[in-house]
Amino acid sequence: MLISGHGGDIYSRQIEYDFSANLNPLGMPESVKAALKNSVSEWESYPDPLCRKLSCALSEYEDFPDENIVCGNGAADLIYRLVSAVKPRKAVITAPAFSEYEKALKENGSQTIKYFLSEENSFIVDDGILNILDSSFDMIFLCNPNNPTGQLVTKDILKAVAEKCLENNIILVCDECFLPFVNDGKNKSVREFMNEKVIILNAFTKIYAMAGLRLGYALFGSCELAEKVQKTGQYWSVSTPAQLVGIAALQEKDYIEKTIQFIKNEREFLITKLQEFGFKVYNSEANFILFRCDVPLDKMLLKEKIAIRNCSNYDGLSDGYFRIAVRNHEENCMLISAVRRCFNG
Amino acid sequence: MLISGHGGDIYSRQIEYDFSANLNPLGMPESVKAALKNSVSEWESYPDPLCRKLSCALSEYEDFPDENIVCGNGAADLIYRLVSAVKPRKAVITAPAFSEYEKALKENGSQTIKYFLSEENSFIVDDGILNILDSSFDMIFLCNPNNPTGQLVTKDILKAVAEKCLENNIILVCDECFLPFVNDGKNKSVREFMNEKVIILNAFTKIYAMAGLRLGYALFGSCELAEKVQKTGQYWSVSTPAQLVGIAALQEKDYIEKTIQFIKNEREFLITKLQEFGFKVYNSEANFILFRCDVPLDKMLLKEKIAIRNCSNYDGLSDGYFRIAVRNHEENCMLISAVRRCFNG
Repeated sequence: MLISGHGGDIYSRQIEYDFSANLNPLGMPESVKAALKNSVSEWESYPDPLCRKLSCALSEYEDFPDENIVCGNGAADLIYRLVSAVKPRKAVITAPAFSEYEKALKENGSQTIKYFLSEENSFIVDDGILNILDSSFDMIFLCNPNNPTGQLVTKDILKAVAEKCLENNIILVCDECFLPFVNDGKNKSVREFMNEKVIILNAFTKIYAMAGLRLGYALFGSCELAEKVQKTGQYWSVSTPAQLVGIAALQEKDYIEKTIQFIKNEREFLITKLQEFGFKVYNSEANFILFRCDVPLDKMLLKEKIAIRNCSNYDGLSDGYFRIAVRNHEENCMLISAVRRCFNG
Repeated sequence: MLISGHGGDIYSRQIEYDFSANLNPLGMPESVKAALKNSVSEWESYPDPLCRKLSCALSEYEDFPDENIVCGNGAADLIYRLVSAVKPRKAVITAPAFSEYEKALKENGSQTIKYFLSEENSFIVDDGILNILDSSFDMIFLCNPNNPTGQLVTKDILKAVAEKCLENNIILVCDECFLPFVNDGKNKSVREFMNEKVIILNAFTKIYAMAGLRLGYALFGSCELAEKVQKTGQYWSVSTPAQLVGIAALQEKDYIEKTIQFIKNEREFLITKLQEFGFKVYNSEANFILFRCDVPLDKMLLKEKIAIRNCSNYDGLSDGYFRIAVRNHEENCMLISAVRRCFNG
């Protein structure tokens, strides 16, 4: 059975160091692990289908009404449930971007128009996107910071897109799953331009390093649409352990701030080192870095049991693009040494 | 936000004894709990999207090719992914039956025809179902034993339906999630009539009392359709803990046999006691019992913090139908005493 080429596949190959999945290198907080170990016997019963306690904790954390929050089995679950609930006739996605947007749209029969981001502009979303948005569209996905480029969408563009979506009755889905890794990320969100057409996607998966547990959530400008998405798809999508650790994770005080500083330092270190190899490195605000090099680096590193993300299967990219996650300093040094060995033979 | 009325909702009400969810009263096996506690640090990484180790264990357990097995985030996840992959124009479901079949079909724009089961025949599926099956249909759902009636579909009907589905190019989905509770259940499965149009749904949720973890699987007669369903919906639907405990649960040797005996004894006890109250009790082969009584028993028991399933929202049933799960002897006695108090004031 074939697999599409997402990162994080440590199961089909022998991998010791995974730079292909963009997870917090600080690992799952100890408080979260303890919450899991202490709650196993509660997992016999069906989970709360409405994730009431978690939504309540998120409401406080996000300062957002709990009836406008929907939790999912990872942010990916919410992408599918949202698209299934709305069934947009026509949607815009950027290219390159996370491939599940397009897949969800296609499965629901939506026509998908791609807005190709320009390499010359480092794949930053420019105001050309405003020109194509008109009332023939029902939905647009923006990823901020964008996966796999690591680039933020500017506040000006976010504001203009949110306004144009409201005018033209287009649902704007801002995927902010990597925004918690960004310095001063809260001020780079579409939150201040929230209107009834805006939906923000977020996840615990990446920032709390709990990808195996699957937990995402969405903030809806419209509580009617939130209710519709809540009712779409299966009744019990979010597991009990995911709900419990979500609540535990939100109580972590310094973990995110510590993560942001950690990522910033290590990202700068990696960018400098990658540039020293002569690679074209795209500036990133996220916990991963896109770069270009002329050798099949992923295959070469695989011999050392290191996985990086070959990005050639992203529409809008091509052979020679790779993405690496920012890991801890020891791992990052190890990666750089391994890349050096690839070139020195 | 409204909730549809499934059983197992212990979150919106104060419940001490839950007879509304049909879970194994023996509880989650200790080996499964240990497997969970010992694997928490593995849950940081993304789960294996193809559930390879679990599918391999299931292949051996079920003696079925692993490329024809798909795992899901509970059996409910598989119902939605299957319907989304096939998008049947027209489907048959029985009434009463588990409501998620109809919901999944409606969300995917399918026309749904209901075959109403007759109360006079104790809601057993009769051969009238064969008369309505023709090539205008793309899919039929049968639940065996049926939820909420507890009735098995006879081997004759299973065989005839499987043959008629093959002739008429109709996908037959047999939901056997409660079959592991049935005495000699393996011989009551549609398995011996498997053909390329048959799909068997099964779950770990109920038989291993791990509803909070969400794990189901499907056996496909067609490996092409299995692959299509595997690729439909999100990439990482099954969590790492669910995959791990699935593997651990399959290694349990006597647990299911012990469960079957336990359920049989307690079910007989409960049926006798319910009949003594003068209730109309439908014979059941499963770990739950459907009965009829003329008072609002669910509301009365709720005052004692006991939940039973009011079945009036099942299409094909009406006010006065209730379903109870077979629990352990102490709990079952407690339920019977509480029912007695309802009548003696």
